[in-house]
Amino acid sequence: MKTFILASASPRRSDILSQIRVPFRVEPSSYAEDGRNFLPADRPIRFAEGKALDVSRKFPAEYVLGFDTLVFLDGVPLGKPCDAADALRMLESLNGRSHKVVSGVALAHGGKLLASDGEETSVRFRRVSRKELERYVESGEPMDKAGAYAIQGLGARFVESIDGCFYNVVGLPVAKTLQLIENLGDLP
Amino acid sequence: MKTFILASASPRRSDILSQIRVPFRVEPSSYAEDGRNFLPADRPIRFAEGKALDVSRKFPAEYVLGFDTLVFLDGVPLGKPCDAADALRMLESLNGRSHKVVSGVALAHGGKLLASDGEETSVRFRRVSRKELERYVESGEPMDKAGAYAIQGLGARFVESIDGCFYNVVGLPVAKTLQLIENLGDLP
Repeated sequence: MKTFILASASPRRSDILSQIRVPFRVEPSSYAEDGRNFLPADRPIRFAEGKALDVSRKFPAEYVLGFDTLVFLDGVPLGKPCDAADALRMLESLNGRSHKVVSGVALAHGGKLLASDGEETSVRFRRVSRKELERYVESGEPMDKAGAYAIQGLGARFVESIDGCFYNVVGLPVAKTLQLIENLGDLP
Repeated sequence: MKTFILASASPRRSDILSQIRVPFRVEPSSYAEDGRNFLPADRPIRFAEGKALDVSRKFPAEYVLGFDTLVFLDGVPLGKPCDAADALRMLESLNGRSHKVVSGVALAHGGKLLASDGEETSVRFRRVSRKELERYVESGEPMDKAGAYAIQGLGARFVESIDGCFYNVVGLPVAKTLQLIENLGDLP
């Protein structure tokens, strides 16, 4: 059974890999994301590749998984909010409508990219009051989340429905990741 | 702020209500589900009503939430597997195709039904090997789950995508439940 390196410090990605019983350890990458180098739609896959390659060069004998997740509203990427007012603005822009969450996943070995892929999930927010959005910002949960919400936390209150992979919204596209791993030959 | 009674012993439903910060305590119902009384498609809502009413009669001063969740494959309900061979048969029938998870939610007060509603989520399984299904059955996770899988557990390996509410597949339709609660007047 192969073991993997997860090139991400995200506890949420560790949780998902543990949940689906992929054996791994964590080595965060020092890849510097620079959106200017890529079209917004290409960034999740390119950043995932950059992270996987960065860690693969340091541990060339191992298999490295890199991930990146972005939230898009009308094709425009939403990052993490810089303060509470920014979080409230983001949440108001998502309120009562649909947006997309796009993740990239990349697998590297020996400092070379073996494969990469992307996954898109559509998320529909129900319409809630400004007061409820304000209360959510006060909870502190939005501050370190792309798009200012966590579907796996209190932010579940806002989500009416999704179309696609749920765990992709959390940060790790399960089926796409297993597909890359299974293409290596033997199932971990 | 109102507090609620959850008429269900399911730890998964408690987890979701806690996650979305609905204040509640648990009082399991002693309602006897009898599918012969209802068409299969009506059972989730009728059973949810039966559970909420049963507990509401015992605690008439409080607001009671009842739930029921069923898995349907081609309109036929799948219950919990009776043994490992049954679990494997169920998983093989779901492998590589889509099925539906239907939940009912009901709100009762003073021994009377205030409102009820249903929610349907479509779940698509990717195609996996018989060996992987057997390994999943060996994990023991399928045994107490309708449809023989847990999307919030190791069973996430099988789910390619969903269309609808994720938490509805776990057992509690979040948006529908909040809607019933919010229709009471003041947001909990």
